[in-house]
Amino acid sequence: MKITVLTGGVGGAKFLLGVKAFLGWDPTGPGPDGDPGADQVTAIVNIGDDIRLHGLQVCPDLDSCLYTLSGVADTERGWGRKDETWTAAAELAAYGAEAPWFALGDKDIATHLVRTRMLDAGYPLSAVTAALAAKWRPGVTLLPMSDERVETHVVVADPTWTGPAGEAPDVALHFQEWWTRYRASLPAKAFLTIGSDEARPANGVLEAIAEADLILVAPSNPVVSIGPILAVPGIKEAVVAAKAPVVGVSPLIAGKPLRGHADACLQAIGVEVSAQGVGRHYGARSDGGLIDAFLVAEGENADVPGVRIGEAPLLMTDPSATAKMVHACLELTR
Amino acid sequence: MKITVLTGGVGGAKFLLGVKAFLGWDPTGPGPDGDPGADQVTAIVNIGDDIRLHGLQVCPDLDSCLYTLSGVADTERGWGRKDETWTAAAELAAYGAEAPWFALGDKDIATHLVRTRMLDAGYPLSAVTAALAAKWRPGVTLLPMSDERVETHVVVADPTWTGPAGEAPDVALHFQEWWTRYRASLPAKAFLTIGSDEARPANGVLEAIAEADLILVAPSNPVVSIGPILAVPGIKEAVVAAKAPVVGVSPLIAGKPLRGHADACLQAIGVEVSAQGVGRHYGARSDGGLIDAFLVAEGENADVPGVRIGEAPLLMTDPSATAKMVHACLELTR
Repeated sequence: MKITVLTGGVGGAKFLLGVKAFLGWDPTGPGPDGDPGADQVTAIVNIGDDIRLHGLQVCPDLDSCLYTLSGVADTERGWGRKDETWTAAAELAAYGAEAPWFALGDKDIATHLVRTRMLDAGYPLSAVTAALAAKWRPGVTLLPMSDERVETHVVVADPTWTGPAGEAPDVALHFQEWWTRYRASLPAKAFLTIGSDEARPANGVLEAIAEADLILVAPSNPVVSIGPILAVPGIKEAVVAAKAPVVGVSPLIAGKPLRGHADACLQAIGVEVSAQGVGRHYGARSDGGLIDAFLVAEGENADVPGVRIGEAPLLMTDPSATAKMVHACLELTR
Repeated sequence: MKITVLTGGVGGAKFLLGVKAFLGWDPTGPGPDGDPGADQVTAIVNIGDDIRLHGLQVCPDLDSCLYTLSGVADTERGWGRKDETWTAAAELAAYGAEAPWFALGDKDIATHLVRTRMLDAGYPLSAVTAALAAKWRPGVTLLPMSDERVETHVVVADPTWTGPAGEAPDVALHFQEWWTRYRASLPAKAFLTIGSDEARPANGVLEAIAEADLILVAPSNPVVSIGPILAVPGIKEAVVAAKAPVVGVSPLIAGKPLRGHADACLQAIGVEVSAQGVGRHYGARSDGGLIDAFLVAEGENADVPGVRIGEAPLLMTDPSATAKMVHACLELTR
């Protein structure tokens, strides 16, 4: 079976652990790496969070997948490497270098150095990601949604405004500045995916969608994780045209995200903060939307025209619990 | 008094500690930073050792000066920062990234990140160095010999050759590969300063030479520290034309360098490995050479036509001992 997952963020990486467990693989092992007859999982990963810091190209969602799926992520902190050190970050802060609110661990910096050097040498991000994966062996084929640069920016009232209240002009912040520096506390007026107009799907993305037996939309942030993927021209169309059923998973439990700021993001784009709201936002594939079925948390009410609704516990407490979510997704396609 | 020093390497940085002590300054303090009436020291620093590793522009000699003169160098190891960590280097090695023989400390990486980002943004190396110095306050104005890239390469018999002995073709290694990876153990056939033909002295270099009251040539490696500086068109000519006396200091004691591989370098270019050999290599300024006077170690015999010879203990055991060397240099000009 070929499973293709649209994903982003820490929740997306956790969901992929469950996909591996569902297939009977070691969640943090290399899977049937290289066995052509085996089940295959491809993750199409959001790069809208990517940011160039200190000259380094940082890809938080790709790295969350690489690190989580190979068992070297810091699962307590929720991002970055375990057993990390922070020497360079302290030194950069002492230099007064940019973005002290976005600390890069020393191990993490090594990844960014390798990536940035390869990108500067002309390799596309998909090839660079494959090279990094050759070391980490995440078991899952990780594809950036695009080899072009696409960055999510967030329109807010200028937080540095000192004039009369309510008259602050709009400014666009890089997603990471809004998310990490301001913890999504500034009301978002709009999300812009800079570069998406001219971006193309990365090598392998359209094939992974066309050849899939099952397409899953991870319980990632619909606006800033899944949204940027769908903003790359051709990807949404490929999903709509795919032969495989498409099942989404709600990122909300009891109307709230477990972590992250999906609620603030949904509000900003005028979507009701509920499983039903997200389901309707994705919409029925039969009606030009994204999904055929939608898995919501136990006890949630959701009515999404043209979309089959299933219920399951959505708490990703461990890979075996998450595997049951994947199983429930598959059941919804029968 | 304005003192200008041609310098490179760890020995050069130590010599500058002595220049600061000679002037009564705290050797690792900021000096009379910003006081226009005070004594001034300018170091014209070799950049031939510079290397781009992992996409980072590494300037070992400039950093030795920055760190040594501000008291944050690791004086036991002899290079880099004290209280350093090596997390990123271990990780880069695990990635199989380039040059595992050249480990970058995590604190050091922060410096290289700041530098590389400024260079990539278009600032000349002299401006970048001034920006770094604004943090470290070395007390001495540090000028790279050039804002252009000049790299020392070393011609050797190909060390990877597996054919018949003695028939290996010549290859040119980056200086750091020869020096650090092979510890200068491969017989050098020639030293090339790539880029020096078209390089120009960095901003401020010619002024620092023309306006000096005393010009010193540090006891640095004559071939690979002082040599590349003089290879930049205009610098040697400026020293020859300077109003100040020029005093060199021998890098050899009892015919040997205290550290580094000056002996191997001198042999490679056919210079006798002795104080006299180095003195004659520099040559009398009155005869188109570099120096008016030359300080050699106690008990060394040196006869350099047209150059006044002085003797002093040349062991730079601490800044006050080194200050006496500077004092002896000044005495030689009287």
